[in-house]
Amino acid sequence: MDHTYAVIMAGGSGTRLWPVSRKDHPKHTLPLLGEQTLFQTTVERLSGLLPVERILVVTAADHAAELRQQAPQLPQENFLLEPEPRGTASVVGLAAVALTRRDPEAVMAVLPSDHFIHNRDLFHLVLHVAVEVARKDYLVTLGITPTFPATGYGYIQRGDLLPEQFAYPVYRVLQFKEKPKEAAALEMLRRGDHSWNSGMFIWRADAILKEFARQMPELKTALDRVGAAWKDADKRAAVIGSEWPRLESKTIDYGVMEHAERVAVLPASGLGWSDVGNWDSLFDVLLSDESGNIVFGGKHKEIDTHGSLIYGNGEDRLVVTIGVDDLIIVDSGDVLLVCRKDQAQKVREIVERLKKEKQDRYL
Amino acid sequence: MDHTYAVIMAGGSGTRLWPVSRKDHPKHTLPLLGEQTLFQTTVERLSGLLPVERILVVTAADHAAELRQQAPQLPQENFLLEPEPRGTASVVGLAAVALTRRDPEAVMAVLPSDHFIHNRDLFHLVLHVAVEVARKDYLVTLGITPTFPATGYGYIQRGDLLPEQFAYPVYRVLQFKEKPKEAAALEMLRRGDHSWNSGMFIWRADAILKEFARQMPELKTALDRVGAAWKDADKRAAVIGSEWPRLESKTIDYGVMEHAERVAVLPASGLGWSDVGNWDSLFDVLLSDESGNIVFGGKHKEIDTHGSLIYGNGEDRLVVTIGVDDLIIVDSGDVLLVCRKDQAQKVREIVERLKKEKQDRYL
Repeated sequence: MDHTYAVIMAGGSGTRLWPVSRKDHPKHTLPLLGEQTLFQTTVERLSGLLPVERILVVTAADHAAELRQQAPQLPQENFLLEPEPRGTASVVGLAAVALTRRDPEAVMAVLPSDHFIHNRDLFHLVLHVAVEVARKDYLVTLGITPTFPATGYGYIQRGDLLPEQFAYPVYRVLQFKEKPKEAAALEMLRRGDHSWNSGMFIWRADAILKEFARQMPELKTALDRVGAAWKDADKRAAVIGSEWPRLESKTIDYGVMEHAERVAVLPASGLGWSDVGNWDSLFDVLLSDESGNIVFGGKHKEIDTHGSLIYGNGEDRLVVTIGVDDLIIVDSGDVLLVCRKDQAQKVREIVERLKKEKQDRYL
Repeated sequence: MDHTYAVIMAGGSGTRLWPVSRKDHPKHTLPLLGEQTLFQTTVERLSGLLPVERILVVTAADHAAELRQQAPQLPQENFLLEPEPRGTASVVGLAAVALTRRDPEAVMAVLPSDHFIHNRDLFHLVLHVAVEVARKDYLVTLGITPTFPATGYGYIQRGDLLPEQFAYPVYRVLQFKEKPKEAAALEMLRRGDHSWNSGMFIWRADAILKEFARQMPELKTALDRVGAAWKDADKRAAVIGSEWPRLESKTIDYGVMEHAERVAVLPASGLGWSDVGNWDSLFDVLLSDESGNIVFGGKHKEIDTHGSLIYGNGEDRLVVTIGVDDLIIVDSGDVLLVCRKDQAQKVREIVERLKKEKQDRYL
C-alpha cells in the first residue's frame, strides 16, 4: 500500500441519530456503538493497513480540537481544517492538494467518519484491490451489495467488467441513482446489477484534481491558490479562509462522479456496512438478544418486549418496557424519543420542526 | 347533612401508578392529575357539602406531616394516626370510635383518598341520599354502574329495592364479588344488576361498631380500649400503639360487609369515577386531545401518535413520539416506563421483581 493515504471526512454536523447526536456533537464524535466514537472506530479500522502518518482528517475548525483529542496518535499536521463546510467536493479537493504536494503518486481512499463496517479484514482486502484499480487511473467507488431494498441509500448501476484483471471483479459504472422509492429499490435488487453507494472512493489525488479542472473549474482555481500558499501554514489558512466562502457547496457525487470518465465500482459484499443513518440501522450493526432487542447504555427490565432498541442514558436510569414490539426508545437526557422502528427516518421531520421553532437547546 | 362526617382513608402506601408513585410517596400524596394531589382533590370535593371540622383523615404516622401540609384547612385533631397499617377495617374502627365519642348520632362517609370523581355535584347529591339511607340503620355501599367489563374492580350484586322510599333507588345487597375474569365481567354487565364496588361506604358510626362486635370481636375489644383512653391524647396513642400490632389485618369488605345485615347499595351512574388504579385508567379520567392522546407534565412533539398517554417529567424534558399507538409513556426522572395500554396492569409485576431484587431505590 505504498503511496496510499486515507482521507477521513469528519466535517459533518448533521442531526442524524438525534437526539443523541446534536448540532455541536455530531454523530461521528460520539461513542454511539460502544466505548469508542465512530470517528475513532474509523481511524482504528485502518490499523494494520496504513501507518498513522498516512491517515488524514478533514474537519470543520470547530471540531478539530475534539477530534485531535480522540485520535492523538495522528500527526497534528494531518488534520486539515475547513473554515466552514462546503460539501464533500471541497473536502476531497483540499485533501487532494495536500497529498499531491506530499506525494505525486498519492492514491487516496476517501472515507466517511461515521459509518460502521463489521468485517475489518475484508475491508482491508477490498481497499487493496481498489487501490490497484485506482493506480490504473480509475475513479473507484466502493459499492455495497444490497441486502434489502433500502430507500435511504443512493445506488450505483454497473456495466461491463473492467478490461484489466484484478483480484476481485470491478465494473464500469453505468449510472449513479438517487435514493429510490421502495418499488424501484426492489426492482434494482431483482436485477442484481446495482450496489449501494457507500460514499467511499479511491483514486489518485492527481486524477480527481483533473476531474475538478474539467467539471468544477472554480473549485480547481481555488485549490490551486491554496496549493500555492501551502508551505506557509498561516498564509495557507488565510487563503482557505478567503476562498471557501465563495465556493459552491457540492457533494463529490453530484459535482464530479456522475459525469466523470473512467469511473469504476467495486461491489463489495459481506462487509457488514451501514451508514448508521437512522436509529433502525443499529439493527444492521449491533447484535440483538434472543428477543430481538438491542439494549445499550442503560438498565432495562421488560415483559413481552421484542425487536426493540432501548438506548438508555446511563446506569442511574431504569427503562421498563411492557408489551412493546418494534419500537425505538432513545433517551438522551433532555429528550426522550419513542418511535416505531419502520418510521425512524421521520426523526428528521421533528428536527426540522425544532429548527423552525428555534428550539436550539434541543438541536 | 347534620351529624354527617367524612372519613378519608389516606393510609395507603401502594405502588400503583409506579414509577411516579413510590413506597414513600404513595399515589394519593402526588399531584397526579393536575395542580392538586389526589388527597387534596378528595378533601376539596367535600367543600360545600361538609364543613372542614367534619372531615377526618386516617393515615399512617409516617405520612401525617405531609398530609397536614397538603390540607392545612383541616383541624389538627381531625388527623387520626395509625402506627402501622392494619387494613381498612381498623381504619374504619378508629374513625368510628372517634366519631361516637364526638357525636352519638354521627353518620360517617368512608372515602378512599386516591380515587377520582369527575362530577362533584352529582357526588354530593348521591351522598345526601346515602346519608338518608344510613340514618335508617343501613350499611350503605356506593356502587358504580359499570361502563365496561372491568376485571380490576370488585362487583356488588343487588337484590330488591329497599322498602323505604328515597330520592334515588337503593337496593339490598345480594352478594359481594371479587375481581372477575373478563367473561364473568361481561355476563354481569349483561345482567345489569351489578355495580362496581367503589370502596366508599356510608353508615352510622354506632352501626358499624355493632357489626365489629358481631363479626370482629377482637377489633371491637381493641377499639373499646382505645375509646376508654381517648380523652388523654398521649394515653390514647400509647393504647393504639400497643393494640395495633396485635390486630389482624383485614379489609372492611372481607371483615364485615360480606356477612353484615342490612347492607344496601346505591348504584350511582354518571359520577365519572375511577380508582386510578393503573395508568390506562387515566383515559377514563382525563380528557384526551383530538388524536386520543393525553399529554401531561412535560413537553411533547409527535408524528402519527394516537391513543397514548405521555406523562412527562417537567418542562425541561422533551418527549418525541413517532408512529406510536396505544402506548403509555411515563417518565419519573429515574425510571422510564413504556407500556402497551392494554397491559398496564403488568406494571405490578415489574414492581414485584424490583422488590425481590431489593432494588429499593426504584420502589
